Amino acid sequence: MMKASKYQRQYFMPPVKSMKWAEKEYVEKAPIWCSVDLRDGNQALVIPMSLEQKIEFFKLLVKIGFKEIEVGFPAASETEYEFLRTLIEQDLIPEDVTIQVLTQAREHIIRKTFEAVKGAPKAIVHVYNSTSVAQREQVFKKTKEEILKIAVDGAALLKKLADETEGNFQFEYSPESFTGTEPEYALEVCNAVLDVWQPTADNKCIINLPVTVEHSMPHVYASQVEYMCDNLKYRENVIVSLHPHNDRGCGVADSEMGLLAGADRIEGTLFGNGERTGNVDIVTLGMNMYSQGVDPKLDFSDMPHICEVYEECTGMKVTERSPYSGALVFAAFSGSHQDAIAKGMHWRDDKDPDHWNVPYLPIDPTDVGRNYDADVIRINSQSGKGGVGYILETKYGLNLPPKMREAMGYATKAVSDHKHKELHPDEIFGLFKSTFENVVEPYRINEVHFQQKDGGITTHVTSTFQGETIVTEACGNGRLDAVSNALKKAYDLEYSLETYQEHALECSSSSKAIAYVGIKKPDGTLAWGAGVDPDIIRASIDALVTAINNR
Amino acid sequence: MMKASKYQRQYFMPPVKSMKWAEKEYVEKAPIWCSVDLRDGNQALVIPMSLEQKIEFFKLLVKIGFKEIEVGFPAASETEYEFLRTLIEQDLIPEDVTIQVLTQAREHIIRKTFEAVKGAPKAIVHVYNSTSVAQREQVFKKTKEEILKIAVDGAALLKKLADETEGNFQFEYSPESFTGTEPEYALEVCNAVLDVWQPTADNKCIINLPVTVEHSMPHVYASQVEYMCDNLKYRENVIVSLHPHNDRGCGVADSEMGLLAGADRIEGTLFGNGERTGNVDIVTLGMNMYSQGVDPKLDFSDMPHICEVYEECTGMKVTERSPYSGALVFAAFSGSHQDAIAKGMHWRDDKDPDHWNVPYLPIDPTDVGRNYDADVIRINSQSGKGGVGYILETKYGLNLPPKMREAMGYATKAVSDHKHKELHPDEIFGLFKSTFENVVEPYRINEVHFQQKDGGITTHVTSTFQGETIVTEACGNGRLDAVSNALKKAYDLEYSLETYQEHALECSSSSKAIAYVGIKKPDGTLAWGAGVDPDIIRASIDALVTAINNR
Repeated sequence: MMKASKYQRQYFMPPVKSMKWAEKEYVEKAPIWCSVDLRDGNQALVIPMSLEQKIEFFKLLVKIGFKEIEVGFPAASETEYEFLRTLIEQDLIPEDVTIQVLTQAREHIIRKTFEAVKGAPKAIVHVYNSTSVAQREQVFKKTKEEILKIAVDGAALLKKLADETEGNFQFEYSPESFTGTEPEYALEVCNAVLDVWQPTADNKCIINLPVTVEHSMPHVYASQVEYMCDNLKYRENVIVSLHPHNDRGCGVADSEMGLLAGADRIEGTLFGNGERTGNVDIVTLGMNMYSQGVDPKLDFSDMPHICEVYEECTGMKVTERSPYSGALVFAAFSGSHQDAIAKGMHWRDDKDPDHWNVPYLPIDPTDVGRNYDADVIRINSQSGKGGVGYILETKYGLNLPPKMREAMGYATKAVSDHKHKELHPDEIFGLFKSTFENVVEPYRINEVHFQQKDGGITTHVTSTFQGETIVTEACGNGRLDAVSNALKKAYDLEYSLETYQEHALECSSSSKAIAYVGIKKPDGTLAWGAGVDPDIIRASIDALVTAINNR
Repeated sequence: MMKASKYQRQYFMPPVKSMKWAEKEYVEKAPIWCSVDLRDGNQALVIPMSLEQKIEFFKLLVKIGFKEIEVGFPAASETEYEFLRTLIEQDLIPEDVTIQVLTQAREHIIRKTFEAVKGAPKAIVHVYNSTSVAQREQVFKKTKEEILKIAVDGAALLKKLADETEGNFQFEYSPESFTGTEPEYALEVCNAVLDVWQPTADNKCIINLPVTVEHSMPHVYASQVEYMCDNLKYRENVIVSLHPHNDRGCGVADSEMGLLAGADRIEGTLFGNGERTGNVDIVTLGMNMYSQGVDPKLDFSDMPHICEVYEECTGMKVTERSPYSGALVFAAFSGSHQDAIAKGMHWRDDKDPDHWNVPYLPIDPTDVGRNYDADVIRINSQSGKGGVGYILETKYGLNLPPKMREAMGYATKAVSDHKHKELHPDEIFGLFKSTFENVVEPYRINEVHFQQKDGGITTHVTSTFQGETIVTEACGNGRLDAVSNALKKAYDLEYSLETYQEHALECSSSSKAIAYVGIKKPDGTLAWGAGVDPDIIRASIDALVTAINNR
């Protein structure tokens, strides 16, 4: 049963409500990216990754361009410990990549963590303890002073062990459950930790402000982040990091607004894997920047491959509507969208504009390894002339007259509606051929001869109808007109020739032409036919006969 | 290949950058909700819904509490026309529900739309034309004046046909592709439409500001919405509506910030179905309000049923990480989260606080028809004592001593890690029984007799080890101590009795007790056993023997 009075807001506004960030409109440069796929992502899987899967995933992250990768919580499980040792001992960490390990602020866990990272060329040791009101009260049953002491003691031990252990260590501290913590208190704890670490320009420290659970709207979080950025000690030597989760569906907005508010670094995962609703999706964040002309410093150009490795390693799916990566995110089924995209693509070909601005396509799908044919214009009962015409044109080289596109659109819609399925390009091409190309029933033309006479054309047409073959003579001001007149005369047909269009067929065969003919019936509606032949006259005659057969 | 210079920002800031909305922290009351599942959602499906599926979905929407439901684009397809006529003719529209139909601002489409809604008790006729720079230039190839005229002509025809048609009509206008339109121009067009409609307090009009494609950060959109709200004519008689899509993953933030900026109404879909990345997810919006103590006026208490109907009708999946609805969004696999949740739930039982504030659970899963057992604490190799202890306690009534929980946690983790799978509660219970309950190998006690003597207890213990049965006599200050001494004496065992705890078993059998015994081995580590028996002495002896057998 739903009863809203059971709830109240669980976040705290900072003492100074700071909104300077809102002066900025967009994220102007890429933050430091830290992937937490192998830790936060992994710990949220029904079946956590095996050692082999972790190594494969690690290589993928390196390939995409991550320079900081959290590889696990090595004190928490044998698999994570072993994975870390494998990375170090098999020399799998590129020179420009720093690994990160997570540890609670508890002595034996910190000690085990340092054992695990021994010999890593560079490592970030990320220590945390929970600071929220709820956790202090319910889980730790400790005062603010006691919780602060946990953080400070942990920080001091990190410093001591880093001095004693081989390797280069950077420190990170998270007041976990930051979004349920009073900002003044979070600030006090972070500054106490920084006082222990004494960060310098050569050895900066990271203060990470997690949205452990999303409790507020993103602008409230941005205000909290701005307050922290404005008041942290040693600010110039502190890297402010964000680690947003997505309980309210706003992880992306939290991250972007937090960056405007002064943060320097983002911890997130591919496709937003992670605890519960997941971490912020770094693919979306990076591509959001990209789509506004800002280089994200991550390479998502082979998105299908990234999706494949992700799905294989995690057992999760990249969902159809996942921004920039899902199967349907570039798809247009609806007629009006298809029409606009088709026109936009034509306009783009004509004008060659400096920047991408095709309607309904926030980015060019080919930039992320997708393609127009399979991913954009997709045909079902919601579709119309624009999409069908676009597919026939771009994939099969058929440039139908506008009104014929409409007829083909209706034919396609009817088939899709009736069959209750999407139609693939080959099915649409097949439907075009069976409906509109060289149809020879009930009327068929067997032979045609022309003579030029008195500035006009005379023709002798041999045609068959219901098993009976006859020869008819007629005149016209052109060849097609003459044949049309012969057929009208032979069978007493009533129509007028409305549209004729013809072009070479480049796609299927360079030596053939296709002609389109539209005729107007006595009731004012149109019927259509197409003819394909190496001879352009024969093609147009076949188109006419097909149109007649389609009345 | 990715090249960011191919892109530039495609949105326009309003002439006055308005940020009054940011003074507010959260959405204080439910907006008017309009579901567009049956139109926008449907037109984005690989296989659009059949008539029967649409009727089922419509009934679901009514049950959830939607009072405005867009039922389709009746001029665009036969199925949609037929669906609308079915709703009207079979009297399926409750009195307090208003249906909405969409139409382009084109004469023959508007006329067909009015034919389709004839006889509906109440209907919103929603007319749109595209106003963005890209669409004006690339698709319509028209000037601003010409595009404005399309809107005004459409509005005028709506007014005329509404007067001539049976039924009660409300009007809605969308400057489609609003987010790619100069706000000043969008305002001009909307005000021109409103001048035609002349809204009154009794007949308000809706101006809908779609995020047709997400081009900007949410605060930019909020600023655009605030500018419109501040400058629309007849504002007191205009309902400002939002229709956000999700290309940048920020549909929820767009909606919430747009509401703070003055909007009154939201068009969206269940689970964010819709074109490309989808529409805004109304489940998330509603539950976000709910989780802050605001009644959303929508009922999601039977979320599993809602998910089921949705999946059946649309062929889409509610993804595992979909806020408030996904299979994993309340799940905690990691040991520290499980521990905090278990402690938080205990604290809640003890203190009975006014408001929900359990760590890591933004809402009580039972509010949306989910349950703690199956959905929250889930056990795999990432889990620990907290989760395992919680399951054994809440589901099987076993209240293990803290240190024994730890041992059970390691045992569980090892099995899950080794088998590479999640363990279900029954498997965990089974593991507990096989590992810790009444283990009788290698040592077994066959018979025990007690005598009270000199203020102490003397016992005669008959025990078997490696096929040999012996009787041993020993004393102790209590019965368990006496038996322990007998075993030590019989087999020359070295350990000390550390922990003893016993309680009645309520879950499996009310007449039995369970005892837990921990012994310390010479190396300082602990071994554990449990015994279950109707006799509390026998239970404790079985626990002791099991602990000895587990050394």
